[in-house]
Amino acid sequence: MSVALEARTSSRVLGASRFDQRQRALEALDTLLAEREPALLAANRRDLEAAGAGGLDAALLARLRLSPEKLQTLREGVRALVAAGDPLGAVLRHTRLDDGLILQQVRSPLGVVLVIFESRPDAVVQIGSLAMASGNAVLLKGGSEARHSNAALVACLRDALEAAGLPCNAVIGVEGRAAVAALLDEHACIDLVIPRGSGALVRSIQAATRIPVLGHAEGVCCLYLHRDADPAMAARVAVDGKTDYPSACNATELLLVDAAFLPRLEPVAQALAEAGVTLWADERARAVIGGRVLAPQHVGKEWGSLDLSVMVVDDLQAAVDAIHRHGSGHTEAIVTSDAAAAEAFLAQVDSASVFHNASTRFADGYRYGLGAEVGISTGRLHARGPVGVEGLTTTRWLLRGSGQCASDYGAGRRSFRHEPI
Amino acid sequence: MSVALEARTSSRVLGASRFDQRQRALEALDTLLAEREPALLAANRRDLEAAGAGGLDAALLARLRLSPEKLQTLREGVRALVAAGDPLGAVLRHTRLDDGLILQQVRSPLGVVLVIFESRPDAVVQIGSLAMASGNAVLLKGGSEARHSNAALVACLRDALEAAGLPCNAVIGVEGRAAVAALLDEHACIDLVIPRGSGALVRSIQAATRIPVLGHAEGVCCLYLHRDADPAMAARVAVDGKTDYPSACNATELLLVDAAFLPRLEPVAQALAEAGVTLWADERARAVIGGRVLAPQHVGKEWGSLDLSVMVVDDLQAAVDAIHRHGSGHTEAIVTSDAAAAEAFLAQVDSASVFHNASTRFADGYRYGLGAEVGISTGRLHARGPVGVEGLTTTRWLLRGSGQCASDYGAGRRSFRHEPI
Repeated sequence: MSVALEARTSSRVLGASRFDQRQRALEALDTLLAEREPALLAANRRDLEAAGAGGLDAALLARLRLSPEKLQTLREGVRALVAAGDPLGAVLRHTRLDDGLILQQVRSPLGVVLVIFESRPDAVVQIGSLAMASGNAVLLKGGSEARHSNAALVACLRDALEAAGLPCNAVIGVEGRAAVAALLDEHACIDLVIPRGSGALVRSIQAATRIPVLGHAEGVCCLYLHRDADPAMAARVAVDGKTDYPSACNATELLLVDAAFLPRLEPVAQALAEAGVTLWADERARAVIGGRVLAPQHVGKEWGSLDLSVMVVDDLQAAVDAIHRHGSGHTEAIVTSDAAAAEAFLAQVDSASVFHNASTRFADGYRYGLGAEVGISTGRLHARGPVGVEGLTTTRWLLRGSGQCASDYGAGRRSFRHEPI
Repeated sequence: MSVALEARTSSRVLGASRFDQRQRALEALDTLLAEREPALLAANRRDLEAAGAGGLDAALLARLRLSPEKLQTLREGVRALVAAGDPLGAVLRHTRLDDGLILQQVRSPLGVVLVIFESRPDAVVQIGSLAMASGNAVLLKGGSEARHSNAALVACLRDALEAAGLPCNAVIGVEGRAAVAALLDEHACIDLVIPRGSGALVRSIQAATRIPVLGHAEGVCCLYLHRDADPAMAARVAVDGKTDYPSACNATELLLVDAAFLPRLEPVAQALAEAGVTLWADERARAVIGGRVLAPQHVGKEWGSLDLSVMVVDDLQAAVDAIHRHGSGHTEAIVTSDAAAAEAFLAQVDSASVFHNASTRFADGYRYGLGAEVGISTGRLHARGPVGVEGLTTTRWLLRGSGQCASDYGAGRRSFRHEPI
């Protein structure tokens, strides 16, 4: 049996299991992570030594490193899933079609998810435990630099499933590019691919598969300073959006300035400059605040750094049009004290997240209170914006009858009641 | 501007419109369909004459024909959408992240939908009006046999939008295979493709595009007669599932018979035979009921006719396994008077619809009370099973603040409250 088919078969057992059984698996995982801490850290040391010898840079080494503290945080995450309750089984719709003919739409696991991530071994536990809690099988392909760490953590997940009497093949580790390429062709057995990493990783996967991909290749977030923006608030929100974490996908990349706000732009530009931001401004903005010349290729650029594009727009409609033209549909914000303008912006901007008087950096599953985050999607189907565990679920329709036949209704011998319950 | 980009641009205006404006467009459509009835019927006559000369068969001619009665039914459908209320704007999640920082997840239009359908001109109005009500732009490609009828109906939709001050390019008729092929490449501007027609049409479109496709290429629905099935009910449900509309996707195609039910299968087989059904049975079943020989290629076959495959399984688990192996994930049913067996079946069968003691023919948007049906999906993402107008919607996250910065929370100066509102 192929790996993907093993996962599909196991997903059906896991998906039909009761939550107390999945809870037992999560509790076993919590215990195993504690018991095996020395072995996990030893496996991680092997990866760190190879990576250090290979000259991996400091930021990547930091992400690759496991520590007792990181393991502790992972165990807290696992216990939070045990406490959070069953993500499955909720009844989304409940209708009496007729006497003794009751329809329910219930939340169900998606099935099999392929997760491809870069060299962060924590992701194995974060994603694996989330899949376990929500009844999904998961195929995990981590960065090859984390090979030994990933294998040791995958073993914990598989052993935890077995300890709870669940099929260990609901978690399968995958090694090597050829294996991933083969999996990306398995439409019948894999329901969703989640790439966690750079825009380049996401784009390469989107190009290589017809399986739906949850994620975002780009985060070009826009902040619009309306003519009625409070300058102090505008400066605060712009500085936070740009500098809080410049390489994050929800960092502000394009500042749209209403022409009528231009006379008050100076203090905003000053605050950004003091925070170390380099402004790339169009002609009208440079006349007021100076800065470097904004070339056409800078306008919709995902800087990922302390650089910010600044463009003047004539009014709110022009700002909305510029967002639809240059943004990536991730997150946009307006600063204004005019409530009507804010509501027009919220209604018209066609992005996953749209904010009034708040930093674009709030677009995040944890900040939204969604619990563990599966990813942030700029696609419109299935899940949009920050995605919690609901992104790993779908629905099924259950109908409980007493021998009814459709022909009775077609022929008018009976008629539907369609009463919500 | 390309046709798809015109649609995208118009979708944003329509998507941000108030429901009363969309209601005005629907009311204008209702009026135009009445006013233009002679012209619509004349356009349809041109199509019917050409099709008759081309030797189109009677069933296709019946679908192609418009009549005063069909137009009346379409107008009733349009008025039902006016009365049904706004499919958009519902708040699905409402959370106080902190004082003065309020998050809402709201239902929003999907955007741009490409609908490809065979020669049923009614589909233009059904789908076009549903898109209009839900704030979506729609590209409509109908069968070329219905060219004149489709063009006349598309003109009604566009004129209705204009009469309400909405962009007429939110409905665009598309002609010719080359134009469709080009549209199937427009990922950036088209969010969903809905093919309405044969499995061959659905498969050819799925193979030709990376845009998500809503639909089902196959409907291989299974009915399992459990050992505790009441024979009279089993016969009734099997006959209805097979014969009520044999070419429908929700018709029963595979009858799974528990080995322990075999001694009571005879009256079920007799009822099926009396209803004109040809049984293709495996060896164990033929020993009891006779019938034709079930070859391997018949087991998961979508007969679409008064033929039915019959296979014996050892127990409930074997039935579930057979469904996962041979079914298409559309709709499956169990007949049993054992409530525990029924619940096990409902929990374990991984299909869009799973029924207890009811005919598979109930899997249908109208029967489920969903109102106008967009399609039936065997995909797991976005929409599964019969899909109503919700299948044309997505969600956006709206956050209303008062100048909050993410760095205040990261640094611990403030903390989230995450209170449901």
